[in-house]
Amino acid sequence: MDVDAYMLDVGRRARAASRALARAGTREKNLALEATAQAILDADDALRAANREDLERARSRGIASALVDRLELTPARVAAMAEGLREIAALPDPVGEVSELRYRPSGIQVGRMRVPLGVIGIVYESRPNVTADAAGLCLKAGNATILRGGSESIRSNLAIARCVAEGLGHAGLPVDAVQVVETTDRAAVGALVGMDEHVDVIVPRGGKSLIERISREATIPVIKHLDGVCHVYIDDRADLGKAQEIAYNAKAQRFGTCNTMETLLVAREVAGEVLPPLGARFEEARVELRGCPETRAILPGCRAASEEDWDTEYLAPVLSVRVVSDLDEAMDHISAHGSQHTDAIVTEDGSRARRFLAEVDSSSVMVNASTRFADGFEYGLGAEIGISTDKLHARGPVGLEGLTSQKFIVLGDGHVRT
Amino acid sequence: MDVDAYMLDVGRRARAASRALARAGTREKNLALEATAQAILDADDALRAANREDLERARSRGIASALVDRLELTPARVAAMAEGLREIAALPDPVGEVSELRYRPSGIQVGRMRVPLGVIGIVYESRPNVTADAAGLCLKAGNATILRGGSESIRSNLAIARCVAEGLGHAGLPVDAVQVVETTDRAAVGALVGMDEHVDVIVPRGGKSLIERISREATIPVIKHLDGVCHVYIDDRADLGKAQEIAYNAKAQRFGTCNTMETLLVAREVAGEVLPPLGARFEEARVELRGCPETRAILPGCRAASEEDWDTEYLAPVLSVRVVSDLDEAMDHISAHGSQHTDAIVTEDGSRARRFLAEVDSSSVMVNASTRFADGFEYGLGAEIGISTDKLHARGPVGLEGLTSQKFIVLGDGHVRT
Repeated sequence: MDVDAYMLDVGRRARAASRALARAGTREKNLALEATAQAILDADDALRAANREDLERARSRGIASALVDRLELTPARVAAMAEGLREIAALPDPVGEVSELRYRPSGIQVGRMRVPLGVIGIVYESRPNVTADAAGLCLKAGNATILRGGSESIRSNLAIARCVAEGLGHAGLPVDAVQVVETTDRAAVGALVGMDEHVDVIVPRGGKSLIERISREATIPVIKHLDGVCHVYIDDRADLGKAQEIAYNAKAQRFGTCNTMETLLVAREVAGEVLPPLGARFEEARVELRGCPETRAILPGCRAASEEDWDTEYLAPVLSVRVVSDLDEAMDHISAHGSQHTDAIVTEDGSRARRFLAEVDSSSVMVNASTRFADGFEYGLGAEIGISTDKLHARGPVGLEGLTSQKFIVLGDGHVRT
Repeated sequence: MDVDAYMLDVGRRARAASRALARAGTREKNLALEATAQAILDADDALRAANREDLERARSRGIASALVDRLELTPARVAAMAEGLREIAALPDPVGEVSELRYRPSGIQVGRMRVPLGVIGIVYESRPNVTADAAGLCLKAGNATILRGGSESIRSNLAIARCVAEGLGHAGLPVDAVQVVETTDRAAVGALVGMDEHVDVIVPRGGKSLIERISREATIPVIKHLDGVCHVYIDDRADLGKAQEIAYNAKAQRFGTCNTMETLLVAREVAGEVLPPLGARFEEARVELRGCPETRAILPGCRAASEEDWDTEYLAPVLSVRVVSDLDEAMDHISAHGSQHTDAIVTEDGSRARRFLAEVDSSSVMVNASTRFADGFEYGLGAEIGISTDKLHARGPVGLEGLTSQKFIVLGDGHVRT
C-alpha cells in the first residue's frame, strides 16, 4: 500500500466533505448524531466482537494490562458512547452564531460569525470510544474528521466508524465527513500531520511521547496538552478546614488525571497546623509524600523531595509538598515548575485571591476550589476534545467553541470607503 | 558576533520582561505609551538624522525607489507615529477583562479572563514606523516584543527604540519589554522563529516571500497574512447603482492594499447592463481589465484573462472580470480561486445575502459594502498588528484582542469535586 497516496486521498475526501458539512443545518447534524447513537446501540454485539479480536491480539502480544483495560469496550462503555453522542446533539450549535454586531461611524455594521475550522485530524491511543466522542464533537462543530487510532484498537475503531457512517448516511451527510484511517502503518501519522492543504488542525490525544512526537513533526497547528503539574497553594489566610478538603480532593479524588494536584505549597505560618492532619489523611489514602526540609521537620515520616520532584507529573499516589514564605514565593514556584495547566489558591483574603487570579499564567486559575474541576463538563462546555496548555486559539478545556473560529461579517447598503 | 547566543539573550530578557508587563497596570502602560509619543516628537531631529543615514545607504545601494519611499521618515510620519501611540493609549485595556462568569451546578463560578500572550516576535520590512506601532500595540496588550526590521532601516529602528526605552523607563516598566534586534545578520531571524521557549508567537509583516519563509522556518505559531485575492460578486438582484459604486471603490480607491478587489464576478443576467458603465469608469481610472469570453463580448476592448489571472493578487491597476450564471457559480469561483481574505456580494435579496455570509469561508464576508472596509480601524478594533488569513486564533484584522488569550478562572468557597 502506498501510504502517502492513500492519506492524500483521505485528506481530499475530508476537505470535500468539510464544505458540505459547513453548510449542513443543525437539524441534519443532530440527526446524524442521534442516528449514530442508535446504530452503536444496535451494533453492540458486532462492536464487542470486533473489540474481542483487538483484546485477544493485545493480550497475545503481551501488552500491559492497564492498556488492555483501556482498550476494552464493555457494555457500559458502548452505552456511554451512545449517550455521549446524544448529549452532543443536545448542545447548542455554535456554527453561524453572530456576536458583537454593531454599527460603525461609516454606517456599516460589523460583527463576528462563528464558523467551523474545516478538517480536524485526531491522533489517539488505545481507547476506542474516542472514535465516537471526537467524531461527534467535530461533526457538531461542522468539521470533517480524520481519525487515526492506535493499531491495537483498529478493529474496534473501524466497527465504530461503520456506525458513524450509518448515522451520516441517515442524515444525508457525506460519509467522508468522518474517516478512520484504515492502515496501521505508522507512516500514516507522518502523512496526516503534514497535509497542510487538507487538514486545518491536529488534536493528539494520548501520552506525552505521542504528543511530543506529533508537535515536532506537524506542519499544521496542533491543539495540544502536555504536562499537568498542578499546584494548590494554602495561604496563611486560608480557612484551614476548606484548605484540607480542597488539597485532599485535588490529590486523592483521582490519581491519574491531568488536573490532579502534584505539588502542595503551604505558607510557613500555617504549615505546622495544616500539614499534620492532612498528612494523616494522605497516609490513610496511601499517598506517598515527598517534602522539602521544612515539611519533613513537621511530618517526620515524609521522604525528601528531589529537585526533579517539583517538575514531575506523577499521575500516581505521590505528592510533593513544599513550605513557602508567602504568596510571592508560591507564585514564583508555580512559574518555575508548573506546566500552565491548573493552579489553585486557598485563601480568605480577597486581595491575594485577586493577585493569584491575575498573575498565575495557567489555563485554569482557581480560588478556593479543587483543581479537579478543570474539565469541560464541569465548566459547562459540554463534552471536551481535550485540554489545551497552549496559549494561542484555545486554552484549557476545549469544547465545541474551540473547534470553531470566527470570521468578520460586514453589512452595508451600498457603503464605500472614502 | 555569536548571533544565536545574542538572540538567546534577547529572548531571555524578553521573557523576564513579559512577566513584569503582564502584571503592569493600565495606568503604567498608558504612561509608557504617552511618554514614548512625547519622546518621539522631542527626538524628531535625531530620528530624521538616523533615517537620512538609512536613506543615503539605501540609495547608494540602488534600492528601488518605492522601497526607499517606504523607508523615509517625513515630519508627517514622525507625527503620525506619536499620534498612533496616543490612540493606542486611549483604547480600553483588554488585559484582565472577565467574561461569561457564571455559576455552575456544582456551585463554582467559571469565567474567562483575558491575558497577554507573553512574548511576540515581529519580523518586518522597510517601514520604520512599524517599530513604534507594533511595539505600542503589543505593550498595551501586556506583551513583550522582539522587533526585527529590515537591515535597510536599522538606524531608524534603533533611534525609535531609544524613544520607546525612554517611555518605558518613565513609566517604571522594564526596558527589555521592547527590544530591537541590533544585528542585521539574517541568521537572527532564523534564531528568533525557533526560540519556542522564549517567544510565543511570530507576526511577520511584509511581502509574500518574507511571510512564506517565516512560516516555513518557524517552530512557533505564526499569525500571518498571505494573499489578498478579494472578490466582489454582483448578483442579478443587485441594485446596479450600488453595485457600480461598490465595485469601483473596491478596486480604485487604492490599488496596492490587500483588501482591494482583484476579481469582479457578475451575474449573467445583469452583465450587459452593469459592465459597460463600470468598464468606462475603470478605463477612466486607467484600470486594465482582463475578462472571460463573455466579458469580452460585452467590453470589446477588454484583454483576455488567463487561468492564472483568477489566482493573482495584482496590487496594481489591473482587474480580472468574469461572468457567472448565479450565486452558486460565484461562490464556487471564490472557493476555487480566493485567498479567504475578503469577499463581498452586492444583492438586495436577503436569502442570497444570508447564504453568502454563511457559506463563503473568508476572514471577512460582506454584503453591499466595499472590500476596502476590511481594516482594524474601520472595524472598531483600533490599530491593527496585521490581517490574518489563518483560521486558528485570530482571523481577519488583528488588534489588541488578537494579541491576547483567555484563561479560565474558577471561584469557589471550599468546593471539591465529588
